[in-house]
Parts: sequence; structure tokens; C-alpha cells
Amino acid sequence: MNKENVCAWFVFNSGQVLIEKQADGYHIPVGPEPPVEVPVGSTVHLIGELNGWPAKTYAIHHPVAGDEHSPRMMKDLRASFDVLPFAEYQRAGKASQILNWDRNSRYCPMCGVPTQQVTPIAKRCPECRQEFYPRISPAIIVLIKKDDSILLVHARNFRGNFKGLVAGFLEPGETLEECVHREVMEETGLTIRNLRYFGSQPWPYPSGIMVGYTADYAGGTIKLQSEELSAGAFYHRDNLPEIPKKLSIARRLIDAWLAGEV
Amino acid sequence: MNKENVCAWFVFNSGQVLIEKQADGYHIPVGPEPPVEVPVGSTVHLIGELNGWPAKTYAIHHPVAGDEHSPRMMKDLRASFDVLPFAEYQRAGKASQILNWDRNSRYCPMCGVPTQQVTPIAKRCPECRQEFYPRISPAIIVLIKKDDSILLVHARNFRGNFKGLVAGFLEPGETLEECVHREVMEETGLTIRNLRYFGSQPWPYPSGIMVGYTADYAGGTIKLQSEELSAGAFYHRDNLPEIPKKLSIARRLIDAWLAGEV
Repeated sequence: MNKENVCAWFVFNSGQVLIEKQADGYHIPVGPEPPVEVPVGSTVHLIGELNGWPAKTYAIHHPVAGDEHSPRMMKDLRASFDVLPFAEYQRAGKASQILNWDRNSRYCPMCGVPTQQVTPIAKRCPECRQEFYPRISPAIIVLIKKDDSILLVHARNFRGNFKGLVAGFLEPGETLEECVHREVMEETGLTIRNLRYFGSQPWPYPSGIMVGYTADYAGGTIKLQSEELSAGAFYHRDNLPEIPKKLSIARRLIDAWLAGEV
Repeated sequence: MNKENVCAWFVFNSGQVLIEKQADGYHIPVGPEPPVEVPVGSTVHLIGELNGWPAKTYAIHHPVAGDEHSPRMMKDLRASFDVLPFAEYQRAGKASQILNWDRNSRYCPMCGVPTQQVTPIAKRCPECRQEFYPRISPAIIVLIKKDDSILLVHARNFRGNFKGLVAGFLEPGETLEECVHREVMEETGLTIRNLRYFGSQPWPYPSGIMVGYTADYAGGTIKLQSEELSAGAFYHRDNLPEIPKKLSIARRLIDAWLAGEV
């Protein structure tokens, strides 16, 4: 095939990404042509590169089924973490965010008129000239330590029965640190101290950046915000319940604590 | 006056906030009634509290002038940092973000139909039921050290002749740390190492969160991205040019470095 025109194709349908089985495992399809016909009216977005190839993404209206000659399947983006090389999962997350933005920026929210795409990550209103970029919602997540235990909670919006960490969206006018203290107080009634930064992670569900912290328990007794949390307690390191999967920064925080690194 | 109905009023016109002189300096007006008539069609937003009073904000169409009996003035939000108590400046920043959001969320960006406000920080589309919250755009800022010098740049969008730090908006699919490396490379051609978190700051111009880092120079020679930067060089601590004002995390980073804390 003509090497010059080869692209990596991130094809999405309802939160699922098209992957194909190769000799060494699952990958994003690569080739000179889109692996599935691009629907009329769909935009093909350039989202950077993957392994030196231009990376492109578009949405299709129906899932694609594979066959013996074309071992393809649609995979939920979260589940694709388990089978794709990390760089391909990460790029698929960006693709999903760009497609989500495309759907969510059709009309100018100031004027109500249709927007026009002007760069791979910018649309413009022809009326007021305002430009719109993909939205990224900042959120915090925090591991709270107490002796040899950590606070684990079950949020009602978790996908599964595992227990994870307190998290929440940043509100206007506050620092990330103020957000951590506020979320911990609102959701659990606890105070914390020794807040320390851990790291950050893009979270394409649908479009966030998670900023992780560790902290020590300072005071209070657990009083759960029952609209958001259905369970919450301190768990000893020898007696942890089911914890989040490895794709999340929550798991990285817990694993770092288990390893004595935080 | 009836204590129960007293509010703190954040009144804005074109980025300027109404303040009034009292015996101990300038403050946000406090009282049972709005200090200026609320224009027909303007929404009064509840934005939390200030010193125990409910804090409210609304926009007016014309600036307000004070007189001898009412020593009021409109002050640019940035400049208000120099005269208001910090808590009042901070709350004014939130007010500005909420008013900006109100203007920027009139129509559903998916459907183009008018939205309805459902909580102090949520609007909803009556068609698709999607909810919209105030947007906060994450951005990084980094102090790069080299021996007894730091990298200072002049960005074309700076308001003034001072030199500040490399900064830029987070893009979909990257960590905050990847964003720092990308921005430094794109804007200056340099590589960095020992990236360390410093802190965060809400930046209501118009609606961001700045996440600050320090790093050490690793390699490369300065090659400025001329569309964004008009100057950039390493400056010795004994020979700094004009630096950013005290309201910014840039200045806090530089001051912390001068004090030997980072």
C-alpha cells in the first residue's frame, strides 16, 4: 500500500471504538482508506498522530461486525484499555473527546446559530465571531490515609460494585486544593490535612482531566452524602474490597499507597 | 437595616466591578437592596456567601459613577485585586465567571434552542435534556530554572510590558505534565526535567484554572514561537526585568523561587 497516505483510523459508534485482531493482539485499524464507509454528513477529524501515521477519527451510525477475513470488533472505550497498546487507548480517548465536542458544538451557545469548524480543534460562530474549543472539565480525586487504612467509597455513578476514591468537579472561583477540601467535607463530613499532589490523567468519559492528590485524615466521623455515595469507610491495607480497574488514576493512587510510595 | 435580607452585591459592567469606599478602604457593596437597579431581563445569580452574607451578582448596561454621598466606582476586575480584601476579590472573580457563563450558555450547543436555568450553576436544554455547567478551562504555567536564572517570556497577549512564564491551555487526551512539556517545546524549543507541582489558582479571565509547576532546564537553545511570544530569555536573579503583578500565580512562582522555596 502507498505509505504516504496511510492513516490510523479511530472509528466510533455510541462510545465503542473499532479494533482489529492482528498477530500480536488488538490494534486500531491502519491503512490508506477508512476501514468503514464515512457516513454522509460526518466530519473526519485529524487528531494528531499515532506511531508516525496521521490519526483520524469519525463516527458511524451502526456498529461493525467482523468476520473470518476481517477480525474486527467494536469495543467499549474503557474496556479497550485492557486489549489495546496504551498509546492506542490514549489516542482513542482523545478521538472520543473530539467527536463528543463535535456533537456538542453545533450551535453558538451565545447566538444559537450554526457554528463553522475552522481548525482541527476550533469552531467559530459566523455571527459573533466567538471561537469554541473542546471543553475539558477539571476534577479532583483524593486518597485519604488514616494509619494503615484508606477511605474507600462507592459512588452511585460508578460502573460496577468496586469501591474507589472521593472525587468531584472543580467549581468556578476555587483552587484545586480548595475543591479537594470542599468535596471531602460535602461527601463525607471529614477534614483532611497534608494535601499533596500526585499526578493527572485525561479522563475521556466524556471529557475531563482528573487531578490526583493524597491527604491524611484530620478529623470528623464519616457522614455520607447519600445522593452521591452509597457506601464509604476506612479499609485496612490487608482487607481491601474490590478496587477500581487499572485504567484509572484512582487505582494508580491506591497501588502507589500499597507500595509505600505515597 | 433588616439583617436577614442583607446581601453582598457583585455588580458588573464590561469586566468592571462596582466597589465603594468605606472607612477602612474599598469593599463590595453590602445591603438589603441591590445598589443599582437590576436591568429588565438580567438574572441575579446566587454565588455562595461572603462574610456570612449571601453573595449575589448581576450585570448592568452602563457603568455607575459615585458622588460625595456615595463614594462608588467601577474597577477593572484585575485592578480590584490591589484595593479589595482578598476574599472579596476572589468572590468577584467567581461572580465574573458566572456572568460570563450566563452570557455563553443561552442556547443549547447541540440543538440551538434556548436553555433554561435549573440551579445556580446549571442550565438545561428543554429539547435534549442535556445540562450545562460553567466552563473552566485548565491551563498550565511553568517556572523553568537554569543555575541562578529563570526563563521569562513576553507573550503577545500580556497586558503590559512585563515578562512572565510559559503557559498554555490543556488539550484533549494529554496529562497536565504532558501539556507542560508540549507547551515548553512548542513555544521555546527547550526540553525540561524534574517537573514538580507548585499549586493552582482560579483565573477568571474569563474562566480558567491555572496549574503551576517548576522544572529544570534540560537542553536546547531558545527558539521562540513568534506568533505567541515576542521575547524570551534566561534572566539572572540579580537582573530581573519587570515581572507579573502579585495577583498571578506566575508572580507567586517567581517570588517562591527568589525566596529559595522552589
